[in-house]
Amino acid sequence: MIPQQLIARKRDGHALSRLELEALLKGYLQGDVGDDQMAAFLMAVYFRGLDDSELETLVEVMLRSGDVLDRSDAPGPRVDKHSTGGVGDKVSIVLAPLAAEMGMIVPMMSGRSLGHTGGTLDKLESIPGFRTRMSLGRFNGILDSVGCAMIGQTDEIAPLDRRLYALRDVTATVPSLPLITASIMSKKLAESLDGLVLDVKVGSGAFLSRTEDARRLARAMVGVGRARGLAVTAVLSAMDRPLGRSVGNALEVRESVACLAGKGPDDLRDLVCELAGEMAVSSGLVLTLAEGRRRAADVLAGGGALERFRRLVRAQGGTLRLSRDDCGLPVAPMTKVVTANRGGVVAGIDPRAFGYGVIPLGGGRTRQDQDIDPGVGFELCARVGDRVSRGDPLAIVHGASPDDLFVGARVLEDAVKVADRLTVDPLPLVLERVVSG
Amino acid sequence: MIPQQLIARKRDGHALSRLELEALLKGYLQGDVGDDQMAAFLMAVYFRGLDDSELETLVEVMLRSGDVLDRSDAPGPRVDKHSTGGVGDKVSIVLAPLAAEMGMIVPMMSGRSLGHTGGTLDKLESIPGFRTRMSLGRFNGILDSVGCAMIGQTDEIAPLDRRLYALRDVTATVPSLPLITASIMSKKLAESLDGLVLDVKVGSGAFLSRTEDARRLARAMVGVGRARGLAVTAVLSAMDRPLGRSVGNALEVRESVACLAGKGPDDLRDLVCELAGEMAVSSGLVLTLAEGRRRAADVLAGGGALERFRRLVRAQGGTLRLSRDDCGLPVAPMTKVVTANRGGVVAGIDPRAFGYGVIPLGGGRTRQDQDIDPGVGFELCARVGDRVSRGDPLAIVHGASPDDLFVGARVLEDAVKVADRLTVDPLPLVLERVVSG
Repeated sequence: MIPQQLIARKRDGHALSRLELEALLKGYLQGDVGDDQMAAFLMAVYFRGLDDSELETLVEVMLRSGDVLDRSDAPGPRVDKHSTGGVGDKVSIVLAPLAAEMGMIVPMMSGRSLGHTGGTLDKLESIPGFRTRMSLGRFNGILDSVGCAMIGQTDEIAPLDRRLYALRDVTATVPSLPLITASIMSKKLAESLDGLVLDVKVGSGAFLSRTEDARRLARAMVGVGRARGLAVTAVLSAMDRPLGRSVGNALEVRESVACLAGKGPDDLRDLVCELAGEMAVSSGLVLTLAEGRRRAADVLAGGGALERFRRLVRAQGGTLRLSRDDCGLPVAPMTKVVTANRGGVVAGIDPRAFGYGVIPLGGGRTRQDQDIDPGVGFELCARVGDRVSRGDPLAIVHGASPDDLFVGARVLEDAVKVADRLTVDPLPLVLERVVSG
Repeated sequence: MIPQQLIARKRDGHALSRLELEALLKGYLQGDVGDDQMAAFLMAVYFRGLDDSELETLVEVMLRSGDVLDRSDAPGPRVDKHSTGGVGDKVSIVLAPLAAEMGMIVPMMSGRSLGHTGGTLDKLESIPGFRTRMSLGRFNGILDSVGCAMIGQTDEIAPLDRRLYALRDVTATVPSLPLITASIMSKKLAESLDGLVLDVKVGSGAFLSRTEDARRLARAMVGVGRARGLAVTAVLSAMDRPLGRSVGNALEVRESVACLAGKGPDDLRDLVCELAGEMAVSSGLVLTLAEGRRRAADVLAGGGALERFRRLVRAQGGTLRLSRDDCGLPVAPMTKVVTANRGGVVAGIDPRAFGYGVIPLGGGRTRQDQDIDPGVGFELCARVGDRVSRGDPLAIVHGASPDDLFVGARVLEDAVKVADRLTVDPLPLVLERVVSG
């Protein structure tokens, strides 16, 4: 195997055979193929793509590069949800205990915030004492007792994916559809699932802004699942505005708790019920999506999901004080309300501006190794389509200093557009679903 | 400067500003930009190209990364020729002393053989004692006394080019027009020339097989020269068959000596006179190309060029025995004649097969660190268009062992096509010229 010949073949638009791609990837794992060569190959893949067979090989080698989770002893279908990432997306925090309460086993491996998108691990870690790192034995123990558990990707799972992701991050080769597909699917396949629901975000706050691209990604992931015998359903959902009202780690956990208690913003609850319904369908617990949605809404309203979340938090070492308004979570020392400087309709709320806006407040990161201030962030007082008068509150900045509040307020003034009327209709919360077969 | 942002901009088809590209390249020189990041950038350049301004910046940073040759004390215009590489291309060996004899100063920096193309340094080093590594002071001394000198690229010249070339070699990013242009021009600009003639080979034995691509490369190089005030003329010449009759290091030096003595194959002499004529025009020694060609032919016929070559060889430590048929050069221990297995016309001689064919004989290399056996190679007895009868000699293999002769003969049998008639006309020796302004 001469790496540069294989790179050249991809560069020239040819597909690599299973043996060739395996040789390249295993050579990389063993150190015979350098980071420089793999970086050039990944950039060639960015331009030339991978065909179905190459994609399956990549997923296979990534999956086999590490361990696969043992199925826990708990009875019930094993189901997970994965989101492609958005702003204000706290769905996992609600969904894992909700699905567990509905009778599913949810072995959830999540990521950290990077750039404008938040990360479930960072949000969970704003809960005092909450641990997202643990042995796989302990993880299985929690799954058995609580029915759901939430950790970060461990070193044992798909190490090739982790190495490639780190390389892609510094070489501008992250936004490649087949590479994203393989990265997501290799990790999810390692969870030994019976069903998987993908939440593919669409819009300016998502990685993919166009429905067509999101649909292609959804189909690719569903295809990889099908090839490996895993039932995968993808839901395309709106990310042309933040999801819910809060952006920022502890603020989002508070909003999640509200949702688990049957309250909180409609859009968050509706999307949670949609995805929980899909999980229930894909695991065979219900026959129709409508039935799944209804059961999810009932469980939320009945308080069982919140109780399940409390058990999950306790099992993972965290402490929540649900009697308190702040749930015992970190709170930023000061706030500033941003008001409308004219009357009209809220015509747009730029999710990307919100996402990037928490970084200077200390609530996000531009590099993997940065620390996060969990208390800071934004809270929306108005949503797209709301009528406002001059002086009405639009949003609240939660910050650590007057300077931060000033910076945050500038972000909000730009990000929340008030106009005479809606110029672009907001996307429907759920655009479409892509199903196997 | 965030390297991945600059890589992403190139990946997405945008041009980098002068400051951005400088920052990326200087960051690479200083170690702030990794080989992985530069490899991804180079692959993005392969797909997206560089605009004129980016190309000039790249050339500039490469040039300034090292030293520039001092102009020697010898009077006369300082001119060089560069070839994009072909099979049997021994032009430099004849041209340097010829141009010096015509009154030019020729500070020639050449390369080594790699893949199917030969390298002037390897050919020269088949002369016993000939040294192609020396200090720049010694190089200038030889230039002053002989009027020409021939060395390899030194560590002091364009070190950024050397690092990038090594990286391109292992990452399949060599065949990029702007990267080739910058690599060639940065080294040639470091020679502090008054004029430069480029021999851009076209055909199956060249790096570029299509005239159109060769023309684009020629124009890009002429453009870079113009932007920096250097008169550059590019000649597109035929490489759909080997140049001359010999392929192999010592064999090619013998053929060069014949040419210097006013003998040898017509095509070699004609191309040498064409390029020498262009050098004379670009340095102002003659007014017309026809006059330049004539003067070159006269100098070859008069024996002055051979005498100049003898002085060059002696100054660089080498020993030639011009009274002997083998010139005192290494000779392979055995030969084998390959004959026509049918009568007809020689319809094609595949230069690439000849070029790659010397590698298993030990006369070429696939990696930069391999040693070369100078005596081995091929000698053509017939040229494209010649009529042959069954049993007529087509070519001779010079090898180190019976096994090698057998392998070499197999190469020749495939590479020399005898047919009823010419099916494709050979390219004219000189296809066209591309001149500044």
